[in-house]
Amino acid sequence: MFETLLTQKLDIRYPILQAPMAGGPTTPELVAVVSNAGGLGNLGAGYLTPEQIRNAIHQTKKLTDRPFGVNLFVFEQPEEPEPVVIGQMAEHLSIYRNELGIPQHPTLPKYSESFEEQLQVILEERVPVFSFTFGIPAPDVIQRIKSHGTLVMGTATTVDEAIQLEAAGVEAIVAQGSEAGGHRGTFLKNESHSLIGLMALVPQMVDHVSVPVIAAGGIMDGRGLVASLALGASAVQMGTAFLACTESGAHPTYKQQILSSNEDATEITSAYSGKAARGIQTKFMCDMQSYPGEIPAYPIQHAMTKDIRQAAAMANNPAYMSLWAGQGLRLANDRSAATIVKETIEQAKGIAKESF
Amino acid sequence: MFETLLTQKLDIRYPILQAPMAGGPTTPELVAVVSNAGGLGNLGAGYLTPEQIRNAIHQTKKLTDRPFGVNLFVFEQPEEPEPVVIGQMAEHLSIYRNELGIPQHPTLPKYSESFEEQLQVILEERVPVFSFTFGIPAPDVIQRIKSHGTLVMGTATTVDEAIQLEAAGVEAIVAQGSEAGGHRGTFLKNESHSLIGLMALVPQMVDHVSVPVIAAGGIMDGRGLVASLALGASAVQMGTAFLACTESGAHPTYKQQILSSNEDATEITSAYSGKAARGIQTKFMCDMQSYPGEIPAYPIQHAMTKDIRQAAAMANNPAYMSLWAGQGLRLANDRSAATIVKETIEQAKGIAKESF
Repeated sequence: MFETLLTQKLDIRYPILQAPMAGGPTTPELVAVVSNAGGLGNLGAGYLTPEQIRNAIHQTKKLTDRPFGVNLFVFEQPEEPEPVVIGQMAEHLSIYRNELGIPQHPTLPKYSESFEEQLQVILEERVPVFSFTFGIPAPDVIQRIKSHGTLVMGTATTVDEAIQLEAAGVEAIVAQGSEAGGHRGTFLKNESHSLIGLMALVPQMVDHVSVPVIAAGGIMDGRGLVASLALGASAVQMGTAFLACTESGAHPTYKQQILSSNEDATEITSAYSGKAARGIQTKFMCDMQSYPGEIPAYPIQHAMTKDIRQAAAMANNPAYMSLWAGQGLRLANDRSAATIVKETIEQAKGIAKESF
Repeated sequence: MFETLLTQKLDIRYPILQAPMAGGPTTPELVAVVSNAGGLGNLGAGYLTPEQIRNAIHQTKKLTDRPFGVNLFVFEQPEEPEPVVIGQMAEHLSIYRNELGIPQHPTLPKYSESFEEQLQVILEERVPVFSFTFGIPAPDVIQRIKSHGTLVMGTATTVDEAIQLEAAGVEAIVAQGSEAGGHRGTFLKNESHSLIGLMALVPQMVDHVSVPVIAAGGIMDGRGLVASLALGASAVQMGTAFLACTESGAHPTYKQQILSSNEDATEITSAYSGKAARGIQTKFMCDMQSYPGEIPAYPIQHAMTKDIRQAAAMANNPAYMSLWAGQGLRLANDRSAATIVKETIEQAKGIAKESF
């Protein structure tokens, strides 16, 4: 029951992808353990420098000879916002810098890594699977990656986005449901129109594209796997399910929040990064709901809040950390990623046998 | 594969409930055809007078000897809002009254029917199934209904709501996912925390209650049925799937909008009724996003916009109609309800046979 066109293409045993969660959780250990267990581990490399990506790929290759993937962000640089927008936000954020005892008026870190330079590493390292989020690279870029023997996957939150991705040449599409934690991959309509629950999104998407669709969002166990396959998906991508596992590099305070929160704890916010993302509600998110000004666009706001998020993590203070998470929180656990893959498959087999 | 504890309790052949969509769609014909086809038809009676409910029940009983359900709204009357809030809204709505050529300053219709008087009809008519939305009746009320041989179901949008419903004595719980069209059944936390996708909501809910759970939201065909059963649900409730069918009493303009819209066409709004509901985005919803004042609470706003919605429907003008719909819109069709039930079951059987 678990062999699909996609598992054949990817040369993996089980249709389980571990989501490429950028910012720490997807250590080479996590990626390798998932791939060794028969799934596809994915390195969330969007925030990494080219050199960090190369190192992570080398480490992963030392730990597994199975296929794995690397994910990057694709997006157009926003126009530089009005200095008054930046100034007002900097002033607002000074409250948190004061509270956390970190310097005011820090030099902003680089807004983002260069996609071209990051991609160069992917090409040189001949990574088995490349996925991207936040848009579509130019068709010739996609062709160039594919010509290196790399399978290319995109991320869609609506049917129209999936149709555009297929036209651009991707070989599989991650259907990101409204349940999903972390940043929304939306790149066409605005986010409020692109929060489609997986139960509705997957069947409509598979009816309109011919490449395999991977269901992502709120899937935590074998029940979600069987349900996704029934809806027409060729695999699932699980993020929050792996966030608190042994091999995850998520901060201990973040893991503790994941393990103690419920399905109704999350909200969509753009307060941390300037781009909509789902996470466990924090004091920072609450505060920012009444922020009177404009939030600078991604990745500027991301750069502006970086030191605050880091200092909060250092202080084990979840109030100002970004706690990205999907809506399956009650089912999160702290076992090994290998156990999570194994138990998901066993549960799915049991459901298929008993119920159908 | 379709026999569950719930189908036995309800004495129905297939685990398919037609959602009790208030305001016109759920004619006695629709309810009876679904029940005759092996599912459970449900009359959305929240807006009906006791006499209208009695008539609809009598008509339904003439058309079927199978079980069917009636749904009512349970909610606390809001405090009367400040006259200035009402005055400001009345002034704003005068734009639409002008455009539609209907009288300004109409006498407000009755805010809502009396739950007690509506319930009296349910008890007297010994309706097989009673479901409610927007809260929980007092435990003695639930016991009184059950003592008449009526099976009682509640509606939950979070796990905590489901736990409270079970404690109050309901015998089944409708899990309303974020995908669902129409009014949100949320009665504990605020709506933005209670928009949980079914893929996440169902498994977490079934882990925390022992009564059967019915998945509702974005389910349009056999794929959604098999997926819901895999997640642990005992049945599905389908609304938008039946909205444009032959027997639906929805306005022709409403049906046409259902049949021509996509999954990303809906939004959550409280502009029409004062309570959050999902519907196809209209000019009225867009306009109201920039309304500077406070929207009077349900059911006051519902009463205040009633003549506008009715006049818009008379003029076949969808701009000011409430077009409640879930996120499965691309899969809506205008066949008979009996065909929809039959094809859903056939597709589900095919999936179960081929895939698992």
